[in-house]
Amino acid sequence: MEQRLSLVTLGVEDLEAARSFYEALGWSQRPGTEGVVFFQAGGLVVGLWRRSDLAEDSGVDDSGGWGGITLAHNVRSPAEVDAVVDEARAAGARIAREPAETFWGGYSGVFVDPDGHPWEVAHNPFWTIADDGSVVL
Amino acid sequence: MEQRLSLVTLGVEDLEAARSFYEALGWSQRPGTEGVVFFQAGGLVVGLWRRSDLAEDSGVDDSGGWGGITLAHNVRSPAEVDAVVDEARAAGARIAREPAETFWGGYSGVFVDPDGHPWEVAHNPFWTIADDGSVVL
Repeated sequence: MEQRLSLVTLGVEDLEAARSFYEALGWSQRPGTEGVVFFQAGGLVVGLWRRSDLAEDSGVDDSGGWGGITLAHNVRSPAEVDAVVDEARAAGARIAREPAETFWGGYSGVFVDPDGHPWEVAHNPFWTIADDGSVVL
Repeated sequence: MEQRLSLVTLGVEDLEAARSFYEALGWSQRPGTEGVVFFQAGGLVVGLWRRSDLAEDSGVDDSGGWGGITLAHNVRSPAEVDAVVDEARAAGARIAREPAETFWGGYSGVFVDPDGHPWEVAHNPFWTIADDGSVVL
């Protein structure tokens, strides 16, 4: 199995509401799909799909709530962390952790999307972000 | 917020067991981190961290079980789907869905890692996989 990830699908209750939230953050879907929303996100795809369909398709039981996966969006400065968290707040996200210095020497905050999926917005001074947005360890 | 994803962190019960599982699939961690495992996965990073720490850091309650996120690893042929699912089976994964043709015109199967995180292994004839493994809509 090659060391890569192609698609992260987020289960949502209301597809239109979820799409609107990510559009309010400045994202644009690939048009032409029905019943599912795909965003090109660098070299992979972030998808939105009805959570009950996703559970069935994945062969898992849905316990509700959070299930042990957190996403992160790394940016190039602490000020950019503040700006993105404020964008998420304006779009209606719950801010689970206000931006602050972290125990690992960076600066980050966490917003939670309308379907309960947390995104850490982080400035990690030890990681490099390439011009195309990819992160290189 | 730029349209990209930097890090996907999977909460795990036993860090060494989880690392061994992904190593059995052929992945190699970036050495030098303690208490956390990072895999460079194309232009982003897949991390493993203790699930209770991840929940606290993310500002969420852990309901246990699956929480509405499924990962996917796209490959270049149906035969490669079979091969990767067999690799996962040999590494001890539960196979939640055996490889078969899908309703959307592709071919896929699903394995579930030891911590309950599902991975769809898919051949999608409508998506392009670049030489570097990135997926372009």
